[in-house]
Amino acid sequence: MSILIKNGRVIYGEDFEVVKADVLIEGNRIAKVAKDINEAADTVIDAKGRVVSPGFINLHTHSPMGLFRGLADDLPLMDWLQNHIWPREAKLTREYTKVGAYLGALEMIKTGTTAFLDMYFFMDAVAEAVLDSGLRGYLSYGMIDLGDPEKTGKEIKEALRTMEFIEKLNSERVHFVFGPHAPYTCSIALLKEVRKLANEHGKLITIHVSETMAEIGQISERYGKSPVVLLDEIGFLGRDVIIAHGVWLDSRDIQILARHGVTVAHNPGSNMKLASGVMPLQRLLNAGVNVGLGTDGSASNNNLDMLDEMKLAALLHKVHNLDPTVADAKTVFRMATLNGARALRLNAGVMKEGYLADIAIIDFNQPHLRPINNVISHLVYSASGSDVETTIVDGKILMLDREVLTLDEEKLLDEAEKTIEKLV
Amino acid sequence: MSILIKNGRVIYGEDFEVVKADVLIEGNRIAKVAKDINEAADTVIDAKGRVVSPGFINLHTHSPMGLFRGLADDLPLMDWLQNHIWPREAKLTREYTKVGAYLGALEMIKTGTTAFLDMYFFMDAVAEAVLDSGLRGYLSYGMIDLGDPEKTGKEIKEALRTMEFIEKLNSERVHFVFGPHAPYTCSIALLKEVRKLANEHGKLITIHVSETMAEIGQISERYGKSPVVLLDEIGFLGRDVIIAHGVWLDSRDIQILARHGVTVAHNPGSNMKLASGVMPLQRLLNAGVNVGLGTDGSASNNNLDMLDEMKLAALLHKVHNLDPTVADAKTVFRMATLNGARALRLNAGVMKEGYLADIAIIDFNQPHLRPINNVISHLVYSASGSDVETTIVDGKILMLDREVLTLDEEKLLDEAEKTIEKLV
Repeated sequence: MSILIKNGRVIYGEDFEVVKADVLIEGNRIAKVAKDINEAADTVIDAKGRVVSPGFINLHTHSPMGLFRGLADDLPLMDWLQNHIWPREAKLTREYTKVGAYLGALEMIKTGTTAFLDMYFFMDAVAEAVLDSGLRGYLSYGMIDLGDPEKTGKEIKEALRTMEFIEKLNSERVHFVFGPHAPYTCSIALLKEVRKLANEHGKLITIHVSETMAEIGQISERYGKSPVVLLDEIGFLGRDVIIAHGVWLDSRDIQILARHGVTVAHNPGSNMKLASGVMPLQRLLNAGVNVGLGTDGSASNNNLDMLDEMKLAALLHKVHNLDPTVADAKTVFRMATLNGARALRLNAGVMKEGYLADIAIIDFNQPHLRPINNVISHLVYSASGSDVETTIVDGKILMLDREVLTLDEEKLLDEAEKTIEKLV
Repeated sequence: MSILIKNGRVIYGEDFEVVKADVLIEGNRIAKVAKDINEAADTVIDAKGRVVSPGFINLHTHSPMGLFRGLADDLPLMDWLQNHIWPREAKLTREYTKVGAYLGALEMIKTGTTAFLDMYFFMDAVAEAVLDSGLRGYLSYGMIDLGDPEKTGKEIKEALRTMEFIEKLNSERVHFVFGPHAPYTCSIALLKEVRKLANEHGKLITIHVSETMAEIGQISERYGKSPVVLLDEIGFLGRDVIIAHGVWLDSRDIQILARHGVTVAHNPGSNMKLASGVMPLQRLLNAGVNVGLGTDGSASNNNLDMLDEMKLAALLHKVHNLDPTVADAKTVFRMATLNGARALRLNAGVMKEGYLADIAIIDFNQPHLRPINNVISHLVYSASGSDVETTIVDGKILMLDREVLTLDEEKLLDEAEKTIEKLV
């Protein structure tokens, strides 16, 4: 299978240089980026007036939560969780979760996301939806033991069961990740066991860390230290760890994250909507920490649109620091692409020969993206996910001219609507 | 001319109650909102799976600045103005400005904006573009005299010339507004003369006030008081005044604005991108001040998308106050519709019998807007302007199924691209 993308503006290489060029995809790789490629290809896409971009990498989400979109907004976190989200999650079945996963996959394909790091329940069901959708999914079962040793064992077992299930799918696109929920919901025993198992199986770990002030208080009261110091002291941290949020980090925390090569998945939309706070982006970047971008779940955002998210990241840090030069467009674009790929050890996030063909083609023939004065700026500040026209993952076209080819959109939207009625 | 919108979810009345109903438009008014309207109409629109919303009212913009979109981002305000925006504006001609105005009009139609308050140069050209587009424009020539009495006279003259030009168009949709740029760029003499003329001609006034800390410092140094106190003392303020930004307001300022019934046009995207600061939304609303929503120009946003802007407003104030209950979805939606209409003395911003037929129809048959758990929440948090399918102003369809009927989109986008090449 080969695809030739003609006449587009290509965001080329690690420095995101915009060049007018054609792109040849052979199998699941980018084979060639050059002017006037005339080789034959199975599919030819005319990208005149379009921008050919690395696909976006959503580094933190709970993809099935789209079911709960808009059900409870403008509420304090604990009211939101305890009175709205948790009671509904308690009713979730494998079947319902899968409907949510399909809805999330649809939304990601339609907004140019090509890979994502997920944490939720019934992750075997999510894995099947991801496999089916054509997306690249890094899937973690969210483990919560609340210090109950019996629960610890059960959670580890469910994680390993999920791992086995995913391994058996034998897909290059679907990966298992360990997902202890957070230091305040997981025992030290669980966290240590996860670290050991991740080493043993060569898997990544993702975990919520330092999201709210309340969490800092809780961990400080329980352990007399910050969540990051705690994780450091039990030997949990490493290059294979992706922490979500990292809002409340002090200088010592930041140094520790940098020293261990930990990645932080930044979720500006969720942090703003839940009023969690503003993460210290500049200080993390200055310390050399790898920072990616995530949307968090659609119940706290309320979408999975990475283009939306880039704008939020760029604007939030400017106003918070009263400095318009921070979180510039290219830095934020890198967070949403290359930095995410690095965290996932994925040879993607860059349009260049040899990289995986994970690509979003964006239609710039629209008034809000004209004149084309600056492609990266337009993607960060002016575009939205709805401007993505074509999404390619692993050399396969998942959406062409806004039509999703791998999933039945109408059917899945109907199912989502029917499912939430059962959960209310 | 009559239009019947069938089977939609209608955001009805001043409380934005969502009801399944049909909408009958006769002439330029909403004639009837009810279930199963079966009267004959010239045009029937099937809105199944769509939301029928009051059109959005952009209460502060510089519509032709789309030409400069993305030309200079991530820069300090003065660097941005002095080295990038002003040199290009100096090269602007009437013809170029008109191209920018058409680009802005296109963008607004495509994102469901039905009325806007504008400030720029060559406003006679902008008026022609607005007339042509079918939008409702409130147009002010931006007056700047920098304390030079000769300039004062010239600016007043240009404003009055613009007013005359617009009056001669004799359109219900195109209105003249007085637009002294700001207290730091206008002399007291100019401001007083504007007040007098506005009374004489029964026109609205719009002016930038308290946008940056630098402005507060400058006015304080020059006059020993805040910009709002200054405007109060010279008798400038009133129910007919719309101040843009109002970022740096103290309690006394807020009381003054409330007492005079001044409207504040909030521009969260611009305030964030230029790192101007966070306006005291809660305190203004608590004081009873009418607050509308604007995008500012596309050089500092970088689009005219009011749906984008609603999300920014809702999220910014939550994180700034570390309180997720502030700037709830309905409050922000009201700012973007009804509050804007009130400021403009426009019988719009509400879907109800007797109101002007200024309407946006949004396609909810999309994964990021499903399940339809909460229509207003989805518009504020999940949607973008690209989800608007049909835009109606004054009972006339300007866009149907994403196709703009009043303007030649392709031609105007080409002209915008060619124009900016001449300005670089």
